[in-house]
Amino acid sequence: MATIFSKIIAGEIPSYKVAEDERFYAFLDINPLVKGHTLVVPKREVDYIFDLSDEELAAMQVFAKHVAEAIQRAFPCRKVGQAVIGLEVPHAHIHLIPIQKESDMLFSNPKLKLEPDEFAAIAQAIAQAWTEGNK
Amino acid sequence: MATIFSKIIAGEIPSYKVAEDERFYAFLDINPLVKGHTLVVPKREVDYIFDLSDEELAAMQVFAKHVAEAIQRAFPCRKVGQAVIGLEVPHAHIHLIPIQKESDMLFSNPKLKLEPDEFAAIAQAIAQAWTEGNK
Repeated sequence: MATIFSKIIAGEIPSYKVAEDERFYAFLDINPLVKGHTLVVPKREVDYIFDLSDEELAAMQVFAKHVAEAIQRAFPCRKVGQAVIGLEVPHAHIHLIPIQKESDMLFSNPKLKLEPDEFAAIAQAIAQAWTEGNK
Repeated sequence: MATIFSKIIAGEIPSYKVAEDERFYAFLDINPLVKGHTLVVPKREVDYIFDLSDEELAAMQVFAKHVAEAIQRAFPCRKVGQAVIGLEVPHAHIHLIPIQKESDMLFSNPKLKLEPDEFAAIAQAIAQAWTEGNK
């Protein structure tokens, strides 16, 4: 059965997309720790990130770097942190989280409640920075 | 001034090494969340991981994958999680954490207190799995 992320990539479930190429897809986490919290996933459905081939894993990380650069341009922060946990959805994903302080990365923090128009504005800001970064 | 990680790589500060190649170095986190919690660092001193070149970042991730495989062979777990925060030490590092459940990744958890001989045994087990994986 397709994972929820595969359904998002296929457009069967809506998402706030921020970036995409032939092999990877980035969209806003619907339960964000901070504004700009983004998920990067491979279009190929693989559960455990370290089961990707070396080449795919490397390409995913480079894609994530360029998404992180777009996030930082749209949402100025000290750094963009990364987390891969992978026990919730059986489809490899990297959390990209713009952080000002270490505790911004704590997954035990309460999640932000945002309205659809706020999500849309955040995604648009990152997507625009992504597009400009690729010009 | 050299970072603490550069001093560790240079052998000026001791560490429990688990793996090394020409460009990267892996050793036990001295304040581990769980047994087997390992740090992967580039020998080249770069603060922010996304300031590495695409090629270096890709190579670091592939190195980390092979270290994660060694960790999992030495310490059976559901997955090896990854975290990059980067606000504590100004030298890029990936945390590799063998996890059984999502909360094993919480940096707010109390850190394990281990004796030197316990650290040494953990490092030896991972280093041996690393060496065997490279045969």
